[in-house]
Amino acid sequence: MSDGILSGVRVIEGSAFVAAPTAGMTLAQLGADVIRFDDPRGGLDFKRWPLTSGGDSLFWSGLQKGKRSFTVDLRSEEGRETLTQLITAPGEGNGIFLTNFPARGWMSYEALSARRPDLIMVVMTGNHDGSSEVDYTVNPSAGFPEAMGPRDSAVPTNSLMPAWDTAMGGLAVVGLLAALRHRDRTGEGQLVKIALSDVALATVGNLGRIAEVQLEGREQPRDGNYLYGAFGGDFPTSDDRRVMVVALTSRQWKALKEVTQTEELFATVEEATGHDFSGEAGRYAGRDLIRELLTPWFGERTLLQIRDAFAGTGVSWGPYQTFGQLVAEDERCSTANPMFSEVEHPVGTYLTPASPLDFSKSGRLPARPSPRLGEHTDEILAELEGSPDPAPAAP
Amino acid sequence: MSDGILSGVRVIEGSAFVAAPTAGMTLAQLGADVIRFDDPRGGLDFKRWPLTSGGDSLFWSGLQKGKRSFTVDLRSEEGRETLTQLITAPGEGNGIFLTNFPARGWMSYEALSARRPDLIMVVMTGNHDGSSEVDYTVNPSAGFPEAMGPRDSAVPTNSLMPAWDTAMGGLAVVGLLAALRHRDRTGEGQLVKIALSDVALATVGNLGRIAEVQLEGREQPRDGNYLYGAFGGDFPTSDDRRVMVVALTSRQWKALKEVTQTEELFATVEEATGHDFSGEAGRYAGRDLIRELLTPWFGERTLLQIRDAFAGTGVSWGPYQTFGQLVAEDERCSTANPMFSEVEHPVGTYLTPASPLDFSKSGRLPARPSPRLGEHTDEILAELEGSPDPAPAAP
Repeated sequence: MSDGILSGVRVIEGSAFVAAPTAGMTLAQLGADVIRFDDPRGGLDFKRWPLTSGGDSLFWSGLQKGKRSFTVDLRSEEGRETLTQLITAPGEGNGIFLTNFPARGWMSYEALSARRPDLIMVVMTGNHDGSSEVDYTVNPSAGFPEAMGPRDSAVPTNSLMPAWDTAMGGLAVVGLLAALRHRDRTGEGQLVKIALSDVALATVGNLGRIAEVQLEGREQPRDGNYLYGAFGGDFPTSDDRRVMVVALTSRQWKALKEVTQTEELFATVEEATGHDFSGEAGRYAGRDLIRELLTPWFGERTLLQIRDAFAGTGVSWGPYQTFGQLVAEDERCSTANPMFSEVEHPVGTYLTPASPLDFSKSGRLPARPSPRLGEHTDEILAELEGSPDPAPAAP
Repeated sequence: MSDGILSGVRVIEGSAFVAAPTAGMTLAQLGADVIRFDDPRGGLDFKRWPLTSGGDSLFWSGLQKGKRSFTVDLRSEEGRETLTQLITAPGEGNGIFLTNFPARGWMSYEALSARRPDLIMVVMTGNHDGSSEVDYTVNPSAGFPEAMGPRDSAVPTNSLMPAWDTAMGGLAVVGLLAALRHRDRTGEGQLVKIALSDVALATVGNLGRIAEVQLEGREQPRDGNYLYGAFGGDFPTSDDRRVMVVALTSRQWKALKEVTQTEELFATVEEATGHDFSGEAGRYAGRDLIRELLTPWFGERTLLQIRDAFAGTGVSWGPYQTFGQLVAEDERCSTANPMFSEVEHPVGTYLTPASPLDFSKSGRLPARPSPRLGEHTDEILAELEGSPDPAPAAP
C-alpha cells in the first residue's frame, strides 16, 4: 500500500481521544496502512478541540494524518459484519486491530479471534481492570501535579500536555510490534493489553518516586521551576523573555560559569558559605543562591544576546516560548528541520511533522495529509470485495 | 537468556539520563537481554537523584532494572575493542546497539557496522543536528510551560515529569523493533536516529498546536487546572483534599449532573444566561460558571464520600495525590495490581512495576531487580570468550 519500514502491515484502528489515535498515527508514519473507522456522523474525535474558526477539528487533522478513514454504522449487523471482515481479513500483514473501545460482544478478542485465530489485538483501557480513565483524571493521582508550581502555591498544577496518553501511544506500538514479531516467528496471535494508569504508575516507579516514599518516607514539595537533584533554574531577560538553564554535568556547570564570568564569584561564595557546587547534590542544595547570583547576568541581556553568548559553549539552556513564538522563532520548528514539511490538509495547509524516527536504509516517509471523514470508505469496501473470504472459524 | 516476548534479542545499551535508559528498560521488561555498560567508577547516572539516605541512587535502581550491568574502561583501547566485540557479536538476536552517547570514532555507526554490516544502531540525540539537549531545556521551548499554571501567574510553569524523555524512550523501542523486523525479513541492518526536540515538536504538531497558530493565529493562555476544549476542573473537598472532574462526553456530563443533583440548577442557569452546556465547546466556554455551581457539592463532602458517590456512575474523575498518598491510598499502586510486585533490589525492597504491556500468550515478566554496578561483567566476558569470533570486516 505504501512505502516505509512497516510497509505491508495493515492495522485497523477503532479509537477516540489521544492515546489510541497516537498509536495508529505512529504506525501510519512508519508506512503501515492504518484504517481508522468512525461512525458516518463522525465519532467522538470529529469535532474535538482545537477547532478552526470554520469548526473543523485540528485535533482530528493532527492525529489522523496518514491514515485512511472508513465510516461504518456499527448499530447495524451489516456494519459490524463488514468491520469484522476487515479486521480478520486474510493475509500476512492483516489481522491487526488496535482499539480503546470497550472490547465486548462482537468486538471482543474471543469473537474476533474465532474468525482469525492468529489475530493481534491491542486493547487500551483506562485502568487495568478495564474501567475508564483519561489523562486528565490519571495525572492528578500520579503525584506530579501536587509537586509542581510555585513553592507558595496552595493548589496543585495540572499538566497541559497529555504526557501519559503520549507515552501510552508509543508503548502500545511497542506491544503491537513485539506481538507481530512473535506471530511472524510462531504463527501465534494474541491479545495485548495496556492501561493508561499503569503507564503513569509504572513511570512514577521507574523514576524512583515509589522507592523514595517507601524507603525514605520523602515527599516532593512544590519547588517552582527548579530541577530536582541538580541545578536547573529559570531567568528573566532584559527584553521580558525567560530562559531555562541546566547544569547537570560538571562540564555544563564549568561552561555556565565561564560564559557568565562568575568563576571567581562562585569560588568566593563557596568559601564564605561552605556550599560546594562541584557536584550535582551541592548545586541542588544551593539552587536558590546560584540562581540569585546568576540573575543579574541574564537581566542585563536580551534573549538574542544570551543565545549568542551561549552558542557553542556547552551551556545547557533553552528559551521559554509560547506556541506562537515556537512557530515564529525556532528553526527546529520549520522546514529547515527534515522532519517537517508544509502539508495540504482538508482543513488547510500547515507545517506538519513526519515521524521523529529516521531510518538510514528504510528512510523516513514525508508527512502526509489527514483524511476527510469517510474519504476511503468506497475504496476499502472495494478492496474487501476483491479479497478472498476470511479464514474459517477455528474449531 | 530470559523469557518474555522479546526473548532471544540482545541489546547493548550505552546511555545516561532518562530517555535511553527507559528504552533499554522497556526492552528488558519484555525479555530482551539488555547489557548496559558503564565506566567502572560509575557513569553519569550512578549517583543520580533521588538518592537514599545511604547515597544510593533510586534513579539508577528504577531505570536499570532487569538489565545486566557491564563495566568497561573506554579510555583503554582494550576496553573499546571488548565493547566493539560485544556490540558486533555474531548471532541472530545480537548486533543491536542503543545509545545516546556521541556516536563518533570507534562508536560511530560506520566503524561498528564495518565489523557487523547488519548492525542495528539506535542513536538518540538532543536535536536533529546531533547537538545536545535535555528534557528540562526542550520543554520550555515546546510551548506547554507558558500555557500552564494559574491564570494570573506572571511566569511559566515547568513540568516535573520528563514527558519528552518518556515518550522518546518508547519511540526509540518502536524504531528498534521496526528495524529488527526489517532485518529479519531482508538481512539489512541500519542506523535509526531520533532527537528529543523532534519528539516534543512532533507532539506539539500532532496535537494541533502548530496548526492553531498558523491557521488561526491563536495562542493558548494560562488557564489554571481547566481542561482545554471541554469541561474539566478541580474542586476542594471538605477534608482538605482536591479532585479533578472531567466531562468530555455527553454521558459523563449527564452522570455528573445526576450524582450532584444539579440537573435543574444547570437547566435554569442555561435558560437564564444563554449558555448551552450540551456540547463540549459550550461546557468549555462556561467552565468558570460550571465550576462555581458544582463547588459547594464537593466542599460539603470528604474525598471518601465523593469516591462512594461517584462509584459506578460513569462520572470521570480522579483524586489529587502526592507520591506518598498514591503509595498509601491507591490500590492501583499496590500488589493488588498485577503489574506490581515487591522486589528486593540492592538498595532495598520496594514496590516495583513490570511492563504495562500484558500479552495473553507470551505473558508478562514479573518485575526484576536492578543490577549492582558491574555485577555481570565477569559473566559477560566469559560469554564473549566462549562465542566465536565476530564476523569479519565488510570489504
